[in-house]
Amino acid sequence: MASPGSGFWPFGAEEGSAAAETPGTARAWCQVAQKFTGGIGNKLCALLYGDAEKPVETGARAAAPGVAEPKPTCTCDKKPCGCQKADVNYAFLHSTDLLPTCNGEITTMSFLQDVVDILLQYVVKSFDRSTKVIDFHYPNELLQEYNWELADQPQTLEEILLNCRTTLKYAIKTGHPRYFNQLSTGLDMVGLAADWLTSAANTNMFTYEIAPVFVLLEYVTLRKMREMVGWPGGCGDGIFSPGGAISNMYAMLIARFKMFPEVKEKGMAAIPRLVAFTSEHSHFSVKKGAAALGIGTDSVILIRCDERGKMIPSDLERRIVEAKQKGFVPFLVSATAGTTVYGAFDPLIAIADICKKYKIWMHVDGAWGGGLLMSRKHKWKLNGIERANSVTWNPHKMMGVPLQCSALLVREEGLMQSCNQMHASYLFQQDKHYDLSYDTGDKALQCGRHVDVFKLWLMWRAKGTTGFEAQIDKCLELAEYLYNKIKNREGYEMVFDGKPQHTNVCFWYIPPSLRGMENSEERTSRLMKVAPVIKARMMEYGTTMVSYQPLGDKVNFFRMVISNPAATHQDIDFLIDEIERLGQDL
Amino acid sequence: MASPGSGFWPFGAEEGSAAAETPGTARAWCQVAQKFTGGIGNKLCALLYGDAEKPVETGARAAAPGVAEPKPTCTCDKKPCGCQKADVNYAFLHSTDLLPTCNGEITTMSFLQDVVDILLQYVVKSFDRSTKVIDFHYPNELLQEYNWELADQPQTLEEILLNCRTTLKYAIKTGHPRYFNQLSTGLDMVGLAADWLTSAANTNMFTYEIAPVFVLLEYVTLRKMREMVGWPGGCGDGIFSPGGAISNMYAMLIARFKMFPEVKEKGMAAIPRLVAFTSEHSHFSVKKGAAALGIGTDSVILIRCDERGKMIPSDLERRIVEAKQKGFVPFLVSATAGTTVYGAFDPLIAIADICKKYKIWMHVDGAWGGGLLMSRKHKWKLNGIERANSVTWNPHKMMGVPLQCSALLVREEGLMQSCNQMHASYLFQQDKHYDLSYDTGDKALQCGRHVDVFKLWLMWRAKGTTGFEAQIDKCLELAEYLYNKIKNREGYEMVFDGKPQHTNVCFWYIPPSLRGMENSEERTSRLMKVAPVIKARMMEYGTTMVSYQPLGDKVNFFRMVISNPAATHQDIDFLIDEIERLGQDL
Repeated sequence: MASPGSGFWPFGAEEGSAAAETPGTARAWCQVAQKFTGGIGNKLCALLYGDAEKPVETGARAAAPGVAEPKPTCTCDKKPCGCQKADVNYAFLHSTDLLPTCNGEITTMSFLQDVVDILLQYVVKSFDRSTKVIDFHYPNELLQEYNWELADQPQTLEEILLNCRTTLKYAIKTGHPRYFNQLSTGLDMVGLAADWLTSAANTNMFTYEIAPVFVLLEYVTLRKMREMVGWPGGCGDGIFSPGGAISNMYAMLIARFKMFPEVKEKGMAAIPRLVAFTSEHSHFSVKKGAAALGIGTDSVILIRCDERGKMIPSDLERRIVEAKQKGFVPFLVSATAGTTVYGAFDPLIAIADICKKYKIWMHVDGAWGGGLLMSRKHKWKLNGIERANSVTWNPHKMMGVPLQCSALLVREEGLMQSCNQMHASYLFQQDKHYDLSYDTGDKALQCGRHVDVFKLWLMWRAKGTTGFEAQIDKCLELAEYLYNKIKNREGYEMVFDGKPQHTNVCFWYIPPSLRGMENSEERTSRLMKVAPVIKARMMEYGTTMVSYQPLGDKVNFFRMVISNPAATHQDIDFLIDEIERLGQDL
Repeated sequence: MASPGSGFWPFGAEEGSAAAETPGTARAWCQVAQKFTGGIGNKLCALLYGDAEKPVETGARAAAPGVAEPKPTCTCDKKPCGCQKADVNYAFLHSTDLLPTCNGEITTMSFLQDVVDILLQYVVKSFDRSTKVIDFHYPNELLQEYNWELADQPQTLEEILLNCRTTLKYAIKTGHPRYFNQLSTGLDMVGLAADWLTSAANTNMFTYEIAPVFVLLEYVTLRKMREMVGWPGGCGDGIFSPGGAISNMYAMLIARFKMFPEVKEKGMAAIPRLVAFTSEHSHFSVKKGAAALGIGTDSVILIRCDERGKMIPSDLERRIVEAKQKGFVPFLVSATAGTTVYGAFDPLIAIADICKKYKIWMHVDGAWGGGLLMSRKHKWKLNGIERANSVTWNPHKMMGVPLQCSALLVREEGLMQSCNQMHASYLFQQDKHYDLSYDTGDKALQCGRHVDVFKLWLMWRAKGTTGFEAQIDKCLELAEYLYNKIKNREGYEMVFDGKPQHTNVCFWYIPPSLRGMENSEERTSRLMKVAPVIKARMMEYGTTMVSYQPLGDKVNFFRMVISNPAATHQDIDFLIDEIERLGQDL
């Protein structure tokens, strides 16, 4: 465990700013909760009152973290209640006592219910600002504090439940209202339910035969997404892939195949030298894809960006002409709708014009920005996306769908299938008794493919497009609130001027000791260390998490992003207070 | 809905062979169940008795499948009970009433609990032989029978619960003891619990920062798997990837990089023509990977197999020499441990000798067969795997881990990182306060990566290596039982001779009308249609599912595989009876 006396800890123990009011609140809740039957009230009561996690400790750390919490004791006055399952003694039971074991039903239901109780506690706590975002431990500490090893002999179900509790104890609460660390934050309750159902259904996407409903839902959902992109009637093709990097790689693969279909059989040796174009602020997966596909990272030409991180179309055209003069064949432009760091939207219309002029496949990486298509207020930022040949759009980012859920959309139908199919006769039998167009597996690079669609589909049903819109508009409003709050505040410098286009707000916090200091090597080298130290302290206190990074000649700055529907104005205020509290001595 | 009068239905309605005894059994269970408190007994009682799904109907189909089941009514005599949550009226609630909404705790817990109740019912029913494996509908029927469309406006939580029930109604019960359709079957209860926890934790694998426990568990688990492969001390590298096809592609990518590291920057244009070797029975993902990586499918040379589907080493050597003579550079041999159709194990020691002699990367695709490393009785079939440079091993197949869980193991440490890293500064900051060797994301082709390890880890803890061993040995024993049962039985022909090496048993069912008929074109063309028709009927009746396919010059045959821990000798008997019942008139 990190000692408070280590380099990162300039303060002694002090009273935390966060939620000392828990006990009172919990008691009030308990009274409300007791009105509910079916064990829910009691569970909630035990959670908030009987078994409440300690509030965030600032400076001091809880003792003996390696020792797991005991099973909560039932303190309910109504019996039987949801807390009471004393008849099933897990200390003498093993996984072999669960289904499919004969007569395993009761043990199974009891065990799964106990796991769910642990998860429900975790979920509810995730949204409680008085709990830590993370109970941080260094890797070596975590390895030592608990025995994670795999052995020959089985553990009891009691130990398995303890494993679950311990795992969650050290996990990040990614649904916590003050967790801002990644583009994917938040925990959607309908999405969670849908993911649980997906696990219970435990199937693969390759054929209609074994995933009838999910294949149809993928069809319905991809068509709807293509409609929102603006392709007439939602026509086209697509797939849910394991993340935006793979979706971008698919786009590159299909673009190459469209131009030189012989590459599938003959390889790169049979075709001219290809080049792809993307902005210097684009996601690294474009280069990663080029490396994997045998194109090579040198053949990815990085186009200059303006001060806001948007690709400069004139530079794109210049580099295309230059490449052609050198005898290379431009085959793909990957424009970005929502860059990772600045949240910038490339000028898609101008890029589409250039792609049309030079007959180049236009891909839009909207992994992060695609969500704005749900918002009538903000979708103009993606104007021109309807002219793209392919689009990456990750509902697991701005739309808050549980990880992972990334769609690649392709305008031309049938191309994915031609590009990737291998006609495996043991999967895609041609003499099946149903419409084989629903056997979509041969479109994919993967053979088995996880069901990623159901959580998005169910959330969409639950929220409607208008619900996603409201959620996204709120996050963008919060980003503007943050921008307005700090743009003229003492101790802050914005990395780029102007209102954020997405929810990315990039800024330096300048500690008092650096304020007024002239630009110099010393100032730069000291400023570089500010964000990492504040971030490390945030993690040690567990109060909040936000990302930082350098970019080009700019030293480490904070990149705040808001995709968490749980965040409020007060959480933004808290973040700023916390940065100042943790950074004032630097 | 398929009409019983259609071509596949030679019989009228008749009494089903399966489990007409349900009501009596359920009543007995109910009495046992009532001894348990905490709502479990009541839930189980309602499940088995009050809300029991109709037993399998053979010939006749249930009416009005589009109409969802009503919420089960509580029939318990003890109040309050787990069935009673009348205070939460979902007809007036929406997802906006759930967390993170202020005061959303009770509604959230109640909603998630109701979803879990639906799932628990589904799970318990999955193992009940009196229920259908699938309630099959043709794609168009399914699209028409329920409104799956996505709309602007939200649905109520009541409708969301209905969506869940409807989805499960039409889903395949992949845990059903008579579901044999794929290499991945079964539903492990600890694995399911672990997957539910993974969903609640909802994080990404790229850094220790946001997945501290899961990153460590990946480290521990991959090391253990490498130990079982036989690499000294479990040394080496690896990653959990989205499926065996991607794992195999990784192997090809890394092998290429090892031989020609400049390919990463310069692409295939800068290096000689590569060729890879794999057997004609190998998985299609080897070719798929070669197409994607710009190597081209023509550069994958298919090596001949013996009658049992094992690669012939002398043919491999001959083709390597031939390729070298043509000026190609052999860079990879992908041997298969457990082929998809025959379940054959390539002779790994002989192949390792050849790879050593010609300095070629040896990959073992043990996606299907890797599980046998857990068995002291069967692991000799993979002798020589310890000499491989990389290994694909899918715990979601033979080990029954929920989908998806595929590991790529690499003997040389650091190679994956060098091959794939792009140093994204916003993720892999070099000035973080912890040991950066745990930020494993840059090894991957993916950026975000789903947490696939936890379910394997928790199952391993729950079963121990010996538990996996017992499970696998049992499946192999069942395959041998099936083989012994049919090898001399009238109406059966084996596709290849001898005891199965894995759980694959490949056979033709010969209907009475074809028995004794001489080999002729007519017989072949009629035999070709037998398996598809029987399979279609199986799906219509919903009684069992098994795969079939043609292979080379062999017309459609059944490929039985057993990875489902729920299967018993009686289920094998049932399968044979069912094939004969459904195929006797053909």
